[in-house]
Amino acid sequence: MTTNPTPTDETDDRVLQRTAAHLAERYDGIFSPDLVERIVYESYTTLHRTARIKTYVASLAGNFAESRLRSLAYSKGLLQRPLPQVLFVCAENAGRSQLAAAALAGIAGDRVEVRSAGARPGEDVYPEVVELLRERGLDAEHAYPKPLTDDVLRGADYIVSMRSGDEIIRYPGKTYLEWDIPVRAEVSAANVGSVFEEVERHVAELWSTIEAKVAEDEPDLPQPLEPA
Amino acid sequence: MTTNPTPTDETDDRVLQRTAAHLAERYDGIFSPDLVERIVYESYTTLHRTARIKTYVASLAGNFAESRLRSLAYSKGLLQRPLPQVLFVCAENAGRSQLAAAALAGIAGDRVEVRSAGARPGEDVYPEVVELLRERGLDAEHAYPKPLTDDVLRGADYIVSMRSGDEIIRYPGKTYLEWDIPVRAEVSAANVGSVFEEVERHVAELWSTIEAKVAEDEPDLPQPLEPA
Repeated sequence: MTTNPTPTDETDDRVLQRTAAHLAERYDGIFSPDLVERIVYESYTTLHRTARIKTYVASLAGNFAESRLRSLAYSKGLLQRPLPQVLFVCAENAGRSQLAAAALAGIAGDRVEVRSAGARPGEDVYPEVVELLRERGLDAEHAYPKPLTDDVLRGADYIVSMRSGDEIIRYPGKTYLEWDIPVRAEVSAANVGSVFEEVERHVAELWSTIEAKVAEDEPDLPQPLEPA
Repeated sequence: MTTNPTPTDETDDRVLQRTAAHLAERYDGIFSPDLVERIVYESYTTLHRTARIKTYVASLAGNFAESRLRSLAYSKGLLQRPLPQVLFVCAENAGRSQLAAAALAGIAGDRVEVRSAGARPGEDVYPEVVELLRERGLDAEHAYPKPLTDDVLRGADYIVSMRSGDEIIRYPGKTYLEWDIPVRAEVSAANVGSVFEEVERHVAELWSTIEAKVAEDEPDLPQPLEPA
């Protein structure tokens, strides 16, 4: 049984081509156009594989590819890394790591760049998680399950994994943390509040550590010269 | 709690660097070195995420990256596509698509290039599958679960998916087939023989179709000119 190409994928293909051209221009002199195109298309295929709703995949792929390229450019020293880079990883990137990313963005605002990823990305962020984020006025619009990629891992300064049994690749020069936040079967409407509070406590502590490190790394103010 | 980089990953990193350098040389003039390096490292990370045994991941990543680069070069017309390209897809790339790939390689030998992939790759090929392939003298050494990537999808002429509920991206100009071979909970020692036989019947039929198409596409032998 042979089926024909669906019109949706042809529309997606045009969106991806435009996205790739746009990002190739933005990263001109940093990455080759063929690399940029590949990251856009592989982002699309990998999200398409797991996303329940396929309608938004092409635009999410653009967003994901942009984040990956920026991260890769930081890791290679091709763009100045202006802010501490924090990556949260859990099993599906549907609950715990999404809550942690939103909590840190809520606390630290634009003083940090936050990403999240899953070892085996789920179909969608849990509806209870989306609802909780909205209730608390946190960003739920940019939350979608993403796979853990090499570029994002390499670009991070802090990598926090939740208890998931998944082993994460260790690159030198980074801070790896593991938080003991179990899946509890699944984040449900009944427990999402308590999971979030637990995550938020950890996130607040992490943010104090990062802030202290940033202050320590900042060069001292120039001292007035003593007359000789 | 912070943990240190494990030596294994540092060894892997050296292997990956050598692999990337080697492949960049082989694909010199076809793909940029940064693209080749990315495909090697992303292949590693994606296999590392899901593989149960991490020991072989660096060398499997080299093999997977090579297959992806070749496939991508075919799809872009940068290398001559010498043989029909067939891709089998199932849920985990641990049972059905591995059996199909081995069966086609067994029937068609070096007259076809066969790949397989999973929508959500499993940790390992089922041991029953490995055993059955060995018993039948089919290649079990190169069988490991791989994710479905854009490059491999794009490079294929025939894309066969098993019943898995997963929607596959449709690119024009390819033949898409769907075989109604359910998971049956899991391939087990008790049913692996019958699954293989069912797969083998479908594969034999597919191979006749491909052979007929190849014969049809081949240019006619030059006819002797009639004297004017």
